[in-house]
Amino acid sequence: FDAALRGGEVHFGTHLDVTSYAEGVRETHNPSGRALPAVVWDFYQNGCSLRLLCPQAFSSTVWNFLSILQEQFGSMAGANTYLTPPGTQGFAPHYDDIEAFVLQLEGKKHWRVYRPRRDAEVLPQFSSANLTQAELGEPVLETVLEAGDLLYFPRGFIHQGDCLPDAHSLHITVSSYQRNSWGDFLEKLIPAALQMALEEDVEYRRGLPMDYLQYMGVANSDTVDARRTAFVEKVQSLIKKLIDYAPIDAAVDQRAKSFLHDCLPPVLTQSEKAQSVYGFPARWQDGAPRDVDILITKDTEVRLLRHGIVRLCNEEAGVMLYYTTENSRVYHKEEPKFIELDPEYTDSIEFLLSSYPNHITVDNLPCETLEEKISLATLLFEKGILTTKKPLVQV
Amino acid sequence: FDAALRGGEVHFGTHLDVTSYAEGVRETHNPSGRALPAVVWDFYQNGCSLRLLCPQAFSSTVWNFLSILQEQFGSMAGANTYLTPPGTQGFAPHYDDIEAFVLQLEGKKHWRVYRPRRDAEVLPQFSSANLTQAELGEPVLETVLEAGDLLYFPRGFIHQGDCLPDAHSLHITVSSYQRNSWGDFLEKLIPAALQMALEEDVEYRRGLPMDYLQYMGVANSDTVDARRTAFVEKVQSLIKKLIDYAPIDAAVDQRAKSFLHDCLPPVLTQSEKAQSVYGFPARWQDGAPRDVDILITKDTEVRLLRHGIVRLCNEEAGVMLYYTTENSRVYHKEEPKFIELDPEYTDSIEFLLSSYPNHITVDNLPCETLEEKISLATLLFEKGILTTKKPLVQV
Amino acid sequence: FDAALRGGEVHFGTHLDVTSYAEGVRETHNPSGRALPAVVWDFYQNGCSLRLLCPQAFSSTVWNFLSILQEQFGSMAGANTYLTPPGTQGFAPHYDDIEAFVLQLEGKKHWRVYRPRRDAEVLPQFSSANLTQAELGEPVLETVLEAGDLLYFPRGFIHQGDCLPDAHSLHITVSSYQRNSWGDFLEKLIPAALQMALEEDVEYRRGLPMDYLQYMGVANSDTVDARRTAFVEKVQSLIKKLIDYAPIDAAVDQRAKSFLHDCLPPVLTQSEKAQSVYGFPARWQDGAPRDVDILITKDTEVRLLRHGIVRLCNEEAGVMLYYTTENSRVYHKEEPKFIELDPEYTDSIEFLLSSYPNHITVDNLPCETLEEKISLATLLFEKGILTTKKPLVQV
Amino acid sequence: FDAALRGGEVHFGTHLDVTSYAEGVRETHNPSGRALPAVVWDFYQNGCSLRLLCPQAFSSTVWNFLSILQEQFGSMAGANTYLTPPGTQGFAPHYDDIEAFVLQLEGKKHWRVYRPRRDAEVLPQFSSANLTQAELGEPVLETVLEAGDLLYFPRGFIHQGDCLPDAHSLHITVSSYQRNSWGDFLEKLIPAALQMALEEDVEYRRGLPMDYLQYMGVANSDTVDARRTAFVEKVQSLIKKLIDYAPIDAAVDQRAKSFLHDCLPPVLTQSEKAQSVYGFPARWQDGAPRDVDILITKDTEVRLLRHGIVRLCNEEAGVMLYYTTENSRVYHKEEPKFIELDPEYTDSIEFLLSSYPNHITVDNLPCETLEEKISLATLLFEKGILTTKKPLVQV
Repeated sequence: FDAALRGGEVHFGTHLDVTSYAEGVRETHNPSGRALPAVVWDFYQNGCSLRLLCPQAFSSTVWNFLSILQEQFGSMAGANTYLTPPGTQGFAPHYDDIEAFVLQLEGKKHWRVYRPRRDAEVLPQFSSANLTQAELGEPVLETVLEAGDLLYFPRGFIHQGDCLPDAHSLHITVSSYQRNSWGDFLEKLIPAALQMALEEDVEYRRGLPMDYLQYMGVANSDTVDARRTAFVEKVQSLIKKLIDYAPIDAAVDQRAKSFLHDCLPPVLTQSEKAQSVYGFPARWQDGAPRDVDILITKDTEVRLLRHGIVRLCNEEAGVMLYYTTENSRVYHKEEPKFIELDPEYTDSIEFLLSSYPNHITVDNLPCETLEEKISLATLLFEKGILTTKKPLVQV
Repeated sequence: FDAALRGGEVHFGTHLDVTSYAEGVRETHNPSGRALPAVVWDFYQNGCSLRLLCPQAFSSTVWNFLSILQEQFGSMAGANTYLTPPGTQGFAPHYDDIEAFVLQLEGKKHWRVYRPRRDAEVLPQFSSANLTQAELGEPVLETVLEAGDLLYFPRGFIHQGDCLPDAHSLHITVSSYQRNSWGDFLEKLIPAALQMALEEDVEYRRGLPMDYLQYMGVANSDTVDARRTAFVEKVQSLIKKLIDYAPIDAAVDQRAKSFLHDCLPPVLTQSEKAQSVYGFPARWQDGAPRDVDILITKDTEVRLLRHGIVRLCNEEAGVMLYYTTENSRVYHKEEPKFIELDPEYTDSIEFLLSSYPNHITVDNLPCETLEEKISLATLLFEKGILTTKKPLVQV
Repeated sequence: FDAALRGGEVHFGTHLDVTSYAEGVRETHNPSGRALPAVVWDFYQNGCSLRLLCPQAFSSTVWNFLSILQEQFGSMAGANTYLTPPGTQGFAPHYDDIEAFVLQLEGKKHWRVYRPRRDAEVLPQFSSANLTQAELGEPVLETVLEAGDLLYFPRGFIHQGDCLPDAHSLHITVSSYQRNSWGDFLEKLIPAALQMALEEDVEYRRGLPMDYLQYMGVANSDTVDARRTAFVEKVQSLIKKLIDYAPIDAAVDQRAKSFLHDCLPPVLTQSEKAQSVYGFPARWQDGAPRDVDILITKDTEVRLLRHGIVRLCNEEAGVMLYYTTENSRVYHKEEPKFIELDPEYTDSIEFLLSSYPNHITVDNLPCETLEEKISLATLLFEKGILTTKKPLVQV
Repeated sequence: FDAALRGGEVHFGTHLDVTSYAEGVRETHNPSGRALPAVVWDFYQNGCSLRLLCPQAFSSTVWNFLSILQEQFGSMAGANTYLTPPGTQGFAPHYDDIEAFVLQLEGKKHWRVYRPRRDAEVLPQFSSANLTQAELGEPVLETVLEAGDLLYFPRGFIHQGDCLPDAHSLHITVSSYQRNSWGDFLEKLIPAALQMALEEDVEYRRGLPMDYLQYMGVANSDTVDARRTAFVEKVQSLIKKLIDYAPIDAAVDQRAKSFLHDCLPPVLTQSEKAQSVYGFPARWQDGAPRDVDILITKDTEVRLLRHGIVRLCNEEAGVMLYYTTENSRVYHKEEPKFIELDPEYTDSIEFLLSSYPNHITVDNLPCETLEEKISLATLLFEKGILTTKKPLVQV
């Protein structure tokens, strides 16, 4: 927190929220402009909680942690950091639309967690509004977290945390699985399935019965009519037959493409940096550029930097390789990054994916000519997607 | 045609197209501005065809004819009128996205009709581009229409018509069933079904498997993997189960509502006019309004002007009665017209629908009080929806 | 009024306002949709005033009257018609941004007119809000208009009219000179003058003094500083010199062009119609067009239909002839209508303008060839701009 | 350059242009995405020039230099840095709309500078397109700049620079005075003057002559007509009288306000930082915030950080103090920053401005109460506008 504030690029509202919750009233106190330490700490001293949004933009540790989690979850991982003064509570009870992992970093916090109140709130699609104490029952869990503790609660579990009178609290909440349900997948899949069915199956293109408006409709829903039965059965059979047209794998690729846009870029270790384009020694020195040529040969051993940083998608416009290495630490600050690939490179990308985490020699790439192998490897190296086993040395 | 042009409100492009098709080239020759007879007939004399769009706006006969057809078809009925000089052709061969009825009004026209060329063009969703003669096979029908003849061809049948050297041609083409297929219905129904399933069934809200991006996707489509099988079966069962959540009747009502917006207003006979608000004698005379009060009593006998001019829809905001009597003869020139009704009037509307075409007395309406009966009948009468058996006479 | 309502195309809000003013409260009672006589007269019987907007769209008499006035005023002429029940008032006292001419058509109306209350309200740019009786002083005029009377009051004069207990009132208010002041003209002229000065005079392009922000500004307005004096004098001399760059005639043409777009189209007498393209006998008869060719010869005698229906403007894209004959009776329903002319036709247009109202023979047009003379005359005839002394007879 | 590229946040197009000019053809070679050293230096090695846009965002030295210049010039100061390989030219000859100062940093560059070709290009408002060698005459100056040299040329002077075969070139071009001419000032001033004249002087609100469209306009410009003379004289007198209504000081304040939005934020020395809110010791330490209270007393000695960082503007909504301290180093990345002030603080702001660069005690501020003095000083201190003579020490 302190480091982020001193960095000088924290703005109220965009990066930092100042909040309070007392006597059932939840308030936000953000002024406008830059969040300078003297002003922020003054709010804190007056009992306000501080929520640092997007700590991954300020802390490399958080960035690294989330970038590993996102690959494990197959779904974007986000985070907020919360600092709460002793004896206060910053937020009203509520439930969220994400899986939550609370990591206590400093101090202590008293938590109460409640089961979903009804079936419709189990694993909900959307977060709740702020709730009142009167709307809550008995907590299913009540505990005090201390530094090092971890608390998990699923989508839909109501929760509230407050500080004991004698200790402040600093914790980070990691979230994932927002809009990542079967239903979210079907929202992509089913319009595509219907489109395909319309193109391929004349049954979907046949005209509706001329008289259907007369016996169908809510006003007729209790009428017994053979035409109603036939209409309903026809609709049901067409829905069922959508299964045959559902482009499941293509829809997964579309979700993967969106996911890669959501992803944080990978964090590189020092040695990974040295083995990648980011550590490549090209530089300006003594009035001229030095060590500029990327000398990849047939014997260069290469691998993907990470398994999950690329995705091949067959699109109308061609074969696209989406990748995360040029994403920003700030959500969607960059447009989706992709390279259009010659379709004959598809096998090489799949070979790199299946070989991971082992290195392969460029010569082993399943391209037709050596020139193509080197050209593809150089392209991927320049985008930070490929690393070499040894740092590339200039001749 | 002549009458429309003399009316002075025909504009090139908006109401009238000037076209030609010669040596495989289809051209449009519309100048800008108003279509004055001297200019239009000059084009005709030079071999151009004339297409009058929306003749229902200029001719009450066409309006009346289409307003009857739309109710029969349960789908908007449109029309264009074509005037072609002897020995010429105005349009390239093509197929349309509508059912077509060609009525020869004057002169003769030589028609060639061709079957759809492949399965994907049977009952197509969209019209074709202009085709070349080389793309056509043998016609399934070749004939010369004379005044009074009718030619029908379905969506997707390619057609071209040209004039014999010795006779001009005037015909009207009536069209219907545009975007009126089972698939079009499913495009409304299925998103609503999925929305409902998400709300009511937790299976749709459960998270996707954490690793699905790894084994699903087009690149993995040939892989044998038990996880793939499980994923696909889960998706299929969820699609199938959509049947249980599909709000079929509500989706029909939504289509009915759109249809009522598309509809032409009804055409009234002289006696219907006298029995409706349009013939009501309220007027200004000798410095004051006369015969203003609409005196509907419990004994007034009423009925709907037409069966298909109203539709009840249950919407979030309330019970809405959509109606066509205030539509324009020009497509969608007016916004959808509706009245919000007290839900307790639902039965009365349904009673009026089921009694049609018989008259009922206002007293027979299933409202609670006589005041309500008269109030509802007066409201519907004022909108032109209800007619009385006898013209309302002033006391 | 009655005729307009029976025409069936009057809509509340768009064409007709239902208003009342009682006990200092001004209300509008417009329902939605079409204004049917039974509903409108019911409002009237209950004491509401009716304002028919744009009566020129419903009455050819009003259209004709306004089309003559607009040419006299050199500014758009509009109108509203007001029908007020006995013993009521429809509007709160207020002043308008137009010159107003009230013509009493039927019944009587009691008017009170008040001088502008202060200098800033003399000939105001904008209309006032509704005023209260307490804000008014003594009327400068109080009178009762009877059928045939005319009352004029200028922009900024507050007015209110109410009906005597024993008589209704029907009057039309004709308005003109909206946004037609010297200041409105300068708003067009001065940006053009400055643009021209910037292009032609380096004095306007020289940089501002480096330090002017320090001694200029409201905070320094009382400071005595030679640099301030120099800055102010420089600005004043540059404003004064704008006079030399002001393209006065071109700015007038721009206003004229806007005015022609605002104009009503001219109303033709029966004989004018016969002499124009609107009466040209081209028609469809017995299966073919008849009398299509417009046979203008060197001896045809022609003139402009009206003097004010055309305006030549030199624009960047070329010489444009703007004209009003294809305007709509509804304000700005049509885009501005113009023909791009070969610059060498400029003299012919000016010759037609200066000859008006006399006829000239086509041969007298100052074009180079006879072909050009006939071509120009035919073009103008086809647009309804030119009439012939005798109806064009077919050979 | 090298440091900027290594920083990793340089993007092609946004921050860096890769260009070439050979055989009269000027090309841009920007790929998409991030500009990594290996890729950038490869372009350079192949003879491309590099233009680093906005070097002030990457170099504090440039930022500092420009922030001083902007205050001197009273106009935004910008910069680009150019790196050119030996024996090449990166740009076609052209002129710019700014005053240009070329500082040679490394290597050498051969420059040719040409006078404006005609009066209309002296001190032009807009930059030229790329010119061909054939369009140029003889240079007014031809010289080779070496490291440490400075070349100035004014708006409108055509220039081209190329590298000698044996030396690369690195230079920075500082620009200012874009859109900062008397004409640009008049574009703000004159519409305001006309608005004021319309409100205050009825002469501007009087109607135009009814017949002016007939004798005015380009077609009449050669006509001798007393009405023309009168019209022109009236317009001229109204233009001249605008001088009386021109709100010169208010228009300067509006320009100052825009300028403050354009400005770079000030660069602080170490000691200035210690004396400002940016060095204030508020921090998080051992589980609690420390040294949070800003203890300004009546004896605290304060001054503005810089003279040009604030501007008072009287606006309709109130008295606004615009300031630059929260601007971004990237042009207009932040919205204009301002505080609404109680009008009674106006004198205190002016006192701070006139005392600069001397310190004053808070007690000397011309506010009514000591509480107000401290409140104002604290507010300005918190925004970074005010510094204290000694760092604020915590009790």
